[in-house]
Amino acid sequence: MTGTTLDDYTDRYARRVRGMTASEIRALFAVASRPEVVSLAGGAPYIAALPLDAVGEMLGRLGSEHGVTTLQYGIGQGTLELRERICEVMSLSGIDAACGASPEDVVVTVGGQQALDLVARLFLDPGDVVLAEGPTYVGALGVFQAAQAQVVHVPMDEDGLVPEALEAAIADLARAGRRVKFLYTIPTYQNPTGVTLSEERRERVLDICERAGLLVVEDDPYGQLGFEGEAPAPLRARRRDGVFYLSTFSKTFAPGLRVGWILAPHAVRDKLVIASEAQILCPSGYAQAAVSTYLGTMPWRQQLKVYREVYRERRDALLDAMTDLMPEGTSWTTPAGGLFVWATLPEGLDSKAMMPRAVAARVAYVPGTGFYADGTGTGAMRLNFSFPPPERIREGVRRLAGVMEQEIAMRRVFGAVGGVAGRRGRAGSDVPGPDLA
Amino acid sequence: MTGTTLDDYTDRYARRVRGMTASEIRALFAVASRPEVVSLAGGAPYIAALPLDAVGEMLGRLGSEHGVTTLQYGIGQGTLELRERICEVMSLSGIDAACGASPEDVVVTVGGQQALDLVARLFLDPGDVVLAEGPTYVGALGVFQAAQAQVVHVPMDEDGLVPEALEAAIADLARAGRRVKFLYTIPTYQNPTGVTLSEERRERVLDICERAGLLVVEDDPYGQLGFEGEAPAPLRARRRDGVFYLSTFSKTFAPGLRVGWILAPHAVRDKLVIASEAQILCPSGYAQAAVSTYLGTMPWRQQLKVYREVYRERRDALLDAMTDLMPEGTSWTTPAGGLFVWATLPEGLDSKAMMPRAVAARVAYVPGTGFYADGTGTGAMRLNFSFPPPERIREGVRRLAGVMEQEIAMRRVFGAVGGVAGRRGRAGSDVPGPDLA
Repeated sequence: MTGTTLDDYTDRYARRVRGMTASEIRALFAVASRPEVVSLAGGAPYIAALPLDAVGEMLGRLGSEHGVTTLQYGIGQGTLELRERICEVMSLSGIDAACGASPEDVVVTVGGQQALDLVARLFLDPGDVVLAEGPTYVGALGVFQAAQAQVVHVPMDEDGLVPEALEAAIADLARAGRRVKFLYTIPTYQNPTGVTLSEERRERVLDICERAGLLVVEDDPYGQLGFEGEAPAPLRARRRDGVFYLSTFSKTFAPGLRVGWILAPHAVRDKLVIASEAQILCPSGYAQAAVSTYLGTMPWRQQLKVYREVYRERRDALLDAMTDLMPEGTSWTTPAGGLFVWATLPEGLDSKAMMPRAVAARVAYVPGTGFYADGTGTGAMRLNFSFPPPERIREGVRRLAGVMEQEIAMRRVFGAVGGVAGRRGRAGSDVPGPDLA
Repeated sequence: MTGTTLDDYTDRYARRVRGMTASEIRALFAVASRPEVVSLAGGAPYIAALPLDAVGEMLGRLGSEHGVTTLQYGIGQGTLELRERICEVMSLSGIDAACGASPEDVVVTVGGQQALDLVARLFLDPGDVVLAEGPTYVGALGVFQAAQAQVVHVPMDEDGLVPEALEAAIADLARAGRRVKFLYTIPTYQNPTGVTLSEERRERVLDICERAGLLVVEDDPYGQLGFEGEAPAPLRARRRDGVFYLSTFSKTFAPGLRVGWILAPHAVRDKLVIASEAQILCPSGYAQAAVSTYLGTMPWRQQLKVYREVYRERRDALLDAMTDLMPEGTSWTTPAGGLFVWATLPEGLDSKAMMPRAVAARVAYVPGTGFYADGTGTGAMRLNFSFPPPERIREGVRRLAGVMEQEIAMRRVFGAVGGVAGRRGRAGSDVPGPDLA
């Protein structure tokens, strides 16, 4: 017998799959999508803000007039037309020809997720270490765990990743003889915290990584969704070498098309293409044509403004409601862009344990534990403001605050909470709580 | 220093990428797509046979009327609506509820390629062995090599995989202490040979794998493209357990949408979904809606007949031209469906070495070596008949035959070819040559 039964397989290779964290977010979606629940748990853009009639007309023509091309196989790297458009988009953030960005080095992917998975596939071996913000994007944890790599979180504060903590982590891992492959970072309007790495820290983080010979994987899905002027330039705009720049049209156009990209160091561009071909053969020609035609013929810069305006209003609705309604001892971040606020709960509250009671009260969020590889995060939660309208957001916060007040009261009765030490979060002034640091 | 420079990375991890075979097919596409070249090298369906006006209209409505859903994020497994439609499609081939097929166990993928990659990702460890037909699908070789698994080819004849050879390979590998994970097979209208595994052998192959405790990965992109009545029922229609069934809409509808699927054993369905989420988060909601609406509202069974009729005519054009024009000593398969013919060249000819001269004569094919993991296949080539119209196919064969005649003459002059022993291939009667066996 050279093989085994399916049960044996399932058993024997379970570790590989256990690694692929059965995302808490996934389980939540089923519950949170019931109409009576106010979901602050998602990460969905507000697609209804798109000019859907015009988009539909464009999509129709891509089939009827160009179907012979758009519905056919394409090349693994993606169409030149889209890669040129992507370079135009990146140039808005300062990633332009002057810093070596070229359609030649762009690889079109199935959303930002495949971009990240390809980089992991190319570089990670079992047992490797990846450095990442703590907390970080849950889908990145899934990728790294599937690759059997270990994530070591680097603390953040209100200015993003703490450079001294990054240096310390690198030194500790070097002493322990661990092999660190790269720093994974979402420097702008981070998921899940909404925090942005400051101008000054960007240079320091790049210098630290350069000195340590560490690659940087910069994930930038939200950079063009700023509410208060321009974000600091991306890391890739500051360094030609050693930075992989990943982004997506999921937040600026539509996630249902699944189009993202990598701007790769030239030396590995071909290898990424080959890895992508092994995974998906080629990205959808139709979806690529949809994005490049959208960028080429429709007022997409104007649409970005629309998205920004909608999300700014909803962020304000969330922050105002939190200021008005959240119990003493709660603090939260004040994002200048993106889709998320990170809230730190009064001492003693457990966001994961509280979740069933929150859902019973018809409100959903993502417990902080989902964004850490090491089980921390019980004292925090991620709140999304891009999808529900402002009045629903306020209602959601009202329900959530009620659940939290009940928890606090219960803990007082049963003596579980010693002192709910009361620093009350204030939008615009507070620093992220202990789960961020 | 815990890390390394990019060059070190590139060097150190080159093996991982070398594994991802820099497909000969990919390099060929650039040349073969010049308009003056008759390309028999592709594998593209004839999209122009679709009712593109009606398809375009449908695609437009999916954006304008349903954009809020279709352009949004979806779930990793794929929409229930599409999974139900997929079960209807499979039931045409006998894979129905009676043999345990259910929308619950379908996972929607980015074409057949991601389906295969997910199975590999779940089961393959470096050093594992995968059994596969010799020759087999080039994209499967890419997947297995990326997983650092070794492909052991099992010989075929005109009735497909040879059961005795399969048994012998399993026994040899067991003696050598190698770990075999599964048999990968394309039993119907195989790529690249066009050969179909006979009714009687299907049961034997399944029995052999069952006895050896080997999983079967059945890849069936072409099963509904038969020209001469029904193909034997798929392996999955015969066994509930131990068979992964993979297919795609790339050949029956349109590859540019990138929609395929896996019907998985129930025990691993969840694991495949989690693996897919780590890779792509979710399949395109828009592409899924396009396929399910196409299946739900348009005459897709009629369209299958159209494709079959177009391809049958083109297969006949290819076989007739080969019979009329190919030099003595050439033999080829006679596919009853699918997209490909496999030709075995007169002794001494090398399809890879001949390629530049063929392209100079404005005809392209894929050398046989692309379909083997072990470098064999120089004496064979794959010819595609689905894309070029009949008169172009004949012209392509005329050019190809001319190049072959020149090769033969040159080898006679220089004494390289001892005896071009002349079994001349005859459509309908010949058996595949040595490169198939």
